[in-house]
Amino acid sequence: MAQNIYDDPGFFERYSRMRRSVGGLDEVLEWPTLRDMVGDVRGRRVLDLGCGMGWFCRWAADAGAASVLGIDLSQNMLARAREMTAAGRPIRYETADLETLALPPDMFDVAHSSLAFHYVEDAGRLYRTIHAALAPGGRLAFSTEHPILMAPSRQAWETRPDGRRVWPLDGYLREGPRVTDWLAPGVIKHHRTLATTLNLLIAAGFTIERVDEFGPTQAQLAAHPDLADDLERPMFLLVAARA
Amino acid sequence: MAQNIYDDPGFFERYSRMRRSVGGLDEVLEWPTLRDMVGDVRGRRVLDLGCGMGWFCRWAADAGAASVLGIDLSQNMLARAREMTAAGRPIRYETADLETLALPPDMFDVAHSSLAFHYVEDAGRLYRTIHAALAPGGRLAFSTEHPILMAPSRQAWETRPDGRRVWPLDGYLREGPRVTDWLAPGVIKHHRTLATTLNLLIAAGFTIERVDEFGPTQAQLAAHPDLADDLERPMFLLVAARA
Repeated sequence: MAQNIYDDPGFFERYSRMRRSVGGLDEVLEWPTLRDMVGDVRGRRVLDLGCGMGWFCRWAADAGAASVLGIDLSQNMLARAREMTAAGRPIRYETADLETLALPPDMFDVAHSSLAFHYVEDAGRLYRTIHAALAPGGRLAFSTEHPILMAPSRQAWETRPDGRRVWPLDGYLREGPRVTDWLAPGVIKHHRTLATTLNLLIAAGFTIERVDEFGPTQAQLAAHPDLADDLERPMFLLVAARA
Repeated sequence: MAQNIYDDPGFFERYSRMRRSVGGLDEVLEWPTLRDMVGDVRGRRVLDLGCGMGWFCRWAADAGAASVLGIDLSQNMLARAREMTAAGRPIRYETADLETLALPPDMFDVAHSSLAFHYVEDAGRLYRTIHAALAPGGRLAFSTEHPILMAPSRQAWETRPDGRRVWPLDGYLREGPRVTDWLAPGVIKHHRTLATTLNLLIAAGFTIERVDEFGPTQAQLAAHPDLADDLERPMFLLVAARA
């Protein structure tokens, strides 16, 4: 079973104060790219894996999705999602662990996931489950922490005498769990190389359509100069793939 | 035009003494993986882009290729290739710059390239040229320096007080030329993110079949313990794609 850190009270309280938790998708730097990858959801049956507070489910419903199923492991998240987004929309929320997820075949046209897959140890099983649940030609679009961000034994910027900021990478080819202190001590994520992620998707039957190693855009840098470091190494990996 | 560093006498002299220059493919750590990606060449028309001293062309001919065309910008390399490999084999060598390469359409079944594409600035143009030159269903398999290796402003390992070896990454999302001193001063390579490489291949019409971020295998580590650092960050990027 994946670690359910979002039901840790301290973690959830701190997560709830983050910009993306309060402001929703408008505060999510990578959302414009991920939205392009998701594409048009009008009339589509949409699945959101690790739906959190339901911001994406609400967006999909308001963009004309025929139905939206949001799943998450965290009762805290699902309670918030139901409270904020479910009324009057064709959204259903269910509790499930992505590590052991079962889905009916051929039930969805679009699958989305934002920053949830790095909590999953057996990504190959998950991708096969999603592929079987998508109708032929359906699309998966997801974001995850970038393996360059996740790999190092110490995940912290360093400043050089000349002012350069460097990301001291190690362990990139040593796949496996990474334990970090992010909003709470002992958060467990599973490091996979970019190649492994793509090869597991291909082995599950997906065709890779687009890959994005996300860094801030020029407009985002102008609005948030503190993001400049994130040109030195990518924050997120985004992938669009067709079933 | 791509920089023709292999016709620099000092560079070529030093390159000629490298393990992979003297011992051929048996000394190339990533060759077993790249050979798997190339697949069966029996009866196939094979193209080698940046053929160097002709080791791959010779392997392909001896493995039963119907014909092999090796192209390279360096007269030094082509002279060595002709001298070592051409006699009695269905191999032809031609001078061409990958930056401005022109090829007849539908002429090849397999295209291979080893550590040459990082010298090319306009990779999109090159991938489109290769795609058009391959018969439908033909395969491209290539290796290139990994962008994590190529990106940093200072490409050098650092040792931490606790003995850890780290690769100080910066500039990963800043694409463009990188000037390094490798066997000669002022060698110019062109840094692209992994995502850009894959997206340009997809835009050229290729389907991504397999991606490998190469590091030494356990057997290679046992034989060459000095390679242990190369588990901390990948050396090479290998891609197999179908036209």
